[in-house]
Amino acid sequence: MTTDKKLSDTSAAPSRITVIGAGAIGLSWTGLFLANGWQVTINDPREDIKAAALAGLSQIKPSLEALGYSGSNFVKRLSFEADLEKAVKDADFIQENGPESLAFKQDLYAKLDKWVKPSAILLSSSSSIPASVFSEKMARPERALIGHPFNPPHLIPLVEVVPGKKTSREATNSAMDFYRSLGKKPALIEKEIAGFVANRLQAAMMRESVHLVKEGVITMEGLDSIVSSSIGLRWAAAGPFKTFTLGGGSGGFRHFLEGLGPMLEKLMANIGDAHFDAETTKVLLEQYDGSYGKIPITELEQQRDHQQLAIMKALAQ
Amino acid sequence: MTTDKKLSDTSAAPSRITVIGAGAIGLSWTGLFLANGWQVTINDPREDIKAAALAGLSQIKPSLEALGYSGSNFVKRLSFEADLEKAVKDADFIQENGPESLAFKQDLYAKLDKWVKPSAILLSSSSSIPASVFSEKMARPERALIGHPFNPPHLIPLVEVVPGKKTSREATNSAMDFYRSLGKKPALIEKEIAGFVANRLQAAMMRESVHLVKEGVITMEGLDSIVSSSIGLRWAAAGPFKTFTLGGGSGGFRHFLEGLGPMLEKLMANIGDAHFDAETTKVLLEQYDGSYGKIPITELEQQRDHQQLAIMKALAQ
Repeated sequence: MTTDKKLSDTSAAPSRITVIGAGAIGLSWTGLFLANGWQVTINDPREDIKAAALAGLSQIKPSLEALGYSGSNFVKRLSFEADLEKAVKDADFIQENGPESLAFKQDLYAKLDKWVKPSAILLSSSSSIPASVFSEKMARPERALIGHPFNPPHLIPLVEVVPGKKTSREATNSAMDFYRSLGKKPALIEKEIAGFVANRLQAAMMRESVHLVKEGVITMEGLDSIVSSSIGLRWAAAGPFKTFTLGGGSGGFRHFLEGLGPMLEKLMANIGDAHFDAETTKVLLEQYDGSYGKIPITELEQQRDHQQLAIMKALAQ
Repeated sequence: MTTDKKLSDTSAAPSRITVIGAGAIGLSWTGLFLANGWQVTINDPREDIKAAALAGLSQIKPSLEALGYSGSNFVKRLSFEADLEKAVKDADFIQENGPESLAFKQDLYAKLDKWVKPSAILLSSSSSIPASVFSEKMARPERALIGHPFNPPHLIPLVEVVPGKKTSREATNSAMDFYRSLGKKPALIEKEIAGFVANRLQAAMMRESVHLVKEGVITMEGLDSIVSSSIGLRWAAAGPFKTFTLGGGSGGFRHFLEGLGPMLEKLMANIGDAHFDAETTKVLLEQYDGSYGKIPITELEQQRDHQQLAIMKALAQ
């Protein structure tokens, strides 16, 4: 990461971004934008937004520093503007993190459409309302699309970039370049499918995980330990297709499909179903109360972040 | 890892292990056992087994050294014995990696039953034939169970320990202690379910991955990149339940279930199906030939192993 360069690069245009909605996701974005030298305006209706944002940013700062970002006074490029029109009129980019409500978002984007500069790119962190839908009331929907982070955005590299039916290729390319310039790994998703890619894969994994815990095959903690000591470790280094390519030896993925494909398909046909019904929820919460539930959340969080940062630093080298 | 101590600790009993079947998995086990100071006997019917094993072990050695194991002359504790009875009679542990054939394994374990010491523990690397089944012809099935590694065993921490219906608690405990003494993370699986846990989760993930590639949502390489830059990274630090516990903020897993459970359940109900049918295989192989298929397997392998070792070293600190 060439963060020192980025931090000094505040003279180059475009450089103004407005963050709409500064809850956990919006604040995490804000920290990342500031660390990369952008002028950030927060638009959030909460009365205590200034104090909450500064407190949140100071919590995020150690992670940003561990990732190689410097610049102790990075909040000097942060401002607050509760009036939406004023907040967005000079922005080159918008990163919107509002409520997951269709009516709210359609109304918001209709307003943005009127108030932003013609060249502005409008990015939504939404995980469930696609651009084709939230942009329906816009006159210029070609500049709006999804830029969906994996939580927390300042730490995890992935951003899913999902254009709507009317989004221009130019706006999509700008979004990809923008996220790359922040050190992120944007992935272009070609279809507006529910859950995009990462959340769908997460749901597939969670469904079988809940199934196995409910059936008494393994405990919640046991399953987590299995994942972290095998497939998680592996997938952090090489995704499923690369992994199975190497599982085919010198014959690669073709050899894997021929040799192990039938066994994998048999397992694929037999994986379980799961629902958060009363019985399943009872099993999960009983196990939770007897395990993670006994440990303060802040301690669990520190464990995870410590390991997460160690892994990311190792991979960056 | 206190490997220097382990390497010098060859006087302590029990310390003799016989590896039955020294293909890729058996050799990887052999390297790990040798690095931990065990006397290892390889039983493998191949005529060129000595040359093949020594070549394979010299390929594994750099990874073992990167994991912190020292001892340049570790093959001095390795011997070869093609006669099964002679190979196993003095062994304290057996790690069996034979063909995944029911008839072969039942016959093999019936023989081992007669020839091993009464105190010996019999461990099978099988991913598909459970102990209750392969031990059917044994007089003393209580000392036989599954010790299923995640490939490659010398590198990836997980070993799934799966006792059969007749396996004694004592043998199970010995197996768990044995793998722990090698620096592994054994996971006790309570039921002999097909695929155990890691391969079932892998199959769930792969099913949705194949579905998304076949539907044109994302490419094979794009999906791998998404996994490695988000969920893989995350699960290497914290498994799915710990991750969603932290997704619930200060309210933990209970709050997650209340707030985000319904959205996750909706995704869980909508994840796709996939089969390696002619059409799907065609899509996968076309993409493979245009991407990973162009890169020498040895290069892909080096990339993965380099990143894998970097992650493991980071987590060990």
